[in-house]
Amino acid sequence: EKLTIGLIPADGIGKEVIPPAAEVMDAVLPGKFEFITLPAGFELFQQTGVALPDETVETLRTKCQGALFGAVSSPSHKVAGYSSPIVALRKKLQTYANIRPVSSPAVRNAKNQTVPVDMLIIRENTECLYIKKERSETDENGQKVCYAERKISEFASKRIGRVAFDMAVARGKLREQQKQQGINVAWTGKPKVTIVHKSNVLSVTDGLFRESVLAVKNEKPEYADVDVEEQLVDSMVYRMFREPEKFDVVVAPNMYGDIISDGAAALVGSLGLVPSTNFGDVVVIGEPVHGSAPDIAGKGIANPIASIRSAAMLLENLGFTAEAAKIYNAVDKLLSEGKTLTPDLGGNATTKDVTAAIISQL
Amino acid sequence: EKLTIGLIPADGIGKEVIPPAAEVMDAVLPGKFEFITLPAGFELFQQTGVALPDETVETLRTKCQGALFGAVSSPSHKVAGYSSPIVALRKKLQTYANIRPVSSPAVRNAKNQTVPVDMLIIRENTECLYIKKERSETDENGQKVCYAERKISEFASKRIGRVAFDMAVARGKLREQQKQQGINVAWTGKPKVTIVHKSNVLSVTDGLFRESVLAVKNEKPEYADVDVEEQLVDSMVYRMFREPEKFDVVVAPNMYGDIISDGAAALVGSLGLVPSTNFGDVVVIGEPVHGSAPDIAGKGIANPIASIRSAAMLLENLGFTAEAAKIYNAVDKLLSEGKTLTPDLGGNATTKDVTAAIISQL
Ligand SMILES: CC(C)[C@H](C(=O)O)[C@@H](O)C(=O)O
Ligand SMILES: CC(C)[C@H](C(=O)O)[C@@H](O)C(=O)O
Repeated sequence: EKLTIGLIPADGIGKEVIPPAAEVMDAVLPGKFEFITLPAGFELFQQTGVALPDETVETLRTKCQGALFGAVSSPSHKVAGYSSPIVALRKKLQTYANIRPVSSPAVRNAKNQTVPVDMLIIRENTECLYIKKERSETDENGQKVCYAERKISEFASKRIGRVAFDMAVARGKLREQQKQQGINVAWTGKPKVTIVHKSNVLSVTDGLFRESVLAVKNEKPEYADVDVEEQLVDSMVYRMFREPEKFDVVVAPNMYGDIISDGAAALVGSLGLVPSTNFGDVVVIGEPVHGSAPDIAGKGIANPIASIRSAAMLLENLGFTAEAAKIYNAVDKLLSEGKTLTPDLGGNATTKDVTAAIISQL
Repeated sequence: EKLTIGLIPADGIGKEVIPPAAEVMDAVLPGKFEFITLPAGFELFQQTGVALPDETVETLRTKCQGALFGAVSSPSHKVAGYSSPIVALRKKLQTYANIRPVSSPAVRNAKNQTVPVDMLIIRENTECLYIKKERSETDENGQKVCYAERKISEFASKRIGRVAFDMAVARGKLREQQKQQGINVAWTGKPKVTIVHKSNVLSVTDGLFRESVLAVKNEKPEYADVDVEEQLVDSMVYRMFREPEKFDVVVAPNMYGDIISDGAAALVGSLGLVPSTNFGDVVVIGEPVHGSAPDIAGKGIANPIASIRSAAMLLENLGFTAEAAKIYNAVDKLLSEGKTLTPDLGGNATTKDVTAAIISQL
């Protein structure tokens, strides 16, 4: 039977890159999916006063086996009543893990060596500063003093730790298979989980994050073979640029994960390449890591690769591993040929050109 | 008369790089300074139970015209009673601005172009998540739930905003002079202040930060000529690597500033190159941006340049502009010659070699 996939293009280039991703899904499994387009976004808020309609959430929860989310515009000023719909969606559907693979066969590190990069960033997706508990007070001089609360729980930290260790083990197994098939793998060592935190300042909250993730290592015998290391978030950003080849799975609280994954995108050349999934127990939502890019919206030149790769990740989650691999390979081939590239990668192809080229390779 | 300079080497390579910085100060202004070494650090805490003795703080406050701080080690586990002495020192002496210049005549950006970089990162140094208000609760399942408070005040945000605009104006003037003298300047446009925040998620706290800094622009007529732009912190890290040549003065709340400045250090090749000052009304504390580097501590190969440049920044603050320029030039010459470099820069010189080479150029 057909699977129902919710499409939430939202704002800006979100509207230009989500349809291509659906096209590619349809091309690789013709007729398998029914796509339904669901409203959300800042533009919707401006028209209707609602950024994330309840019906969108309920449709995703009750009717959809998967979804693709585009991008949301951020108002530059505080707009009364507006709150980011993607943050709300992640919370409402408890997609507790944001999974962001960043890979490229050849990245020049800061030491001017060309190295393969194959990082998987696992970002906790429900708490940290994203709980949006903020308050405003007035001091004795009539000036504003505002506070935000940052929440780190043992429950959510262990939950994300398990995702990290499970993925590290799975990636390790896959690499073993690939090695046996004579395929070159970027990472040759034992699986590794890098825990990112700032416990030298936040000894209670980030202390809990690190302890919780570390404790997960003892939960299953198969985790024993996973190396664990820690990086303070500032040092992580530094090292990621100095020696990106030294990271395998990286797990981080919500905001550090947000920052690190954008930084990692610079490593591989463009935010337009980096996919993600918001992963939980109810529904999986594929989502390009890039934003709504108001500067290029409407020009037809947005890079659809991040969304197309997000669609492939979604397919993997739905059990269509072979079809997902076809998409990854088609994208990799297009990138290594370097002929059909959008402007963010130095080319002059359009969104349509890139999509057509990928579909023709499937 | 002599000026008194407090030296707080603290831990690890801090003990190896602070003496060279003092040597260089003495070489450029012989006999001008009296140096007094003051205790602080994690190693001190392990011996005495105190990380930052009151006497160190009081000596800095009452006797010193300036100071140099090395680096502190971070215990990997939470240690009861220990709290980072540098964070405490910044707060106790109200050094409200952490000023981190990141520059290099030739940086390869992510687009593979070689560009000059001349960024000045101004990090708010007293609040944000660094107020260390954390608490631990237990949920209904007996699991820990921890919270940290993030404080952003109008007062501190405007104060740091003023530092940013003042520095932007001063840098603009300096560049005009340099241009007239036929000196090549990295930045040719109008002075620019980039405000870093995440107001799309933290609309109250980061909303206040951005509004406060924006409001400063109207405080003085001379600020009118400064361009202002905003970057969300995730996007900032991305852009910094894609086009570092597009930033002049960058102002950020405490933790974003911490992360960005380490990232920027990767751009210019090594954390071992990036100096800072902790700047306030009582005393200025020079401080290399790098940490205590336990992996290389005791080997005599730490790069002293970040500390030596921090000493030059301190001299500038004390009014010795010409002497500071001598030091900057000696360092730049050493770097461009590329003969006497420590291992972090791919060389095999020692801390002593680099210090001697710089002193010989003064
Ligand atoms: C749009 C914004 C709220 C979002 C986030 O911070 O999570 C974005 O940056 C992302 O990474 O998906
Ligand atoms: C050691 C640590 C507390 C400190 C900080 O986070 O401020 C350091 O990273 C820095 O940048 O000076």
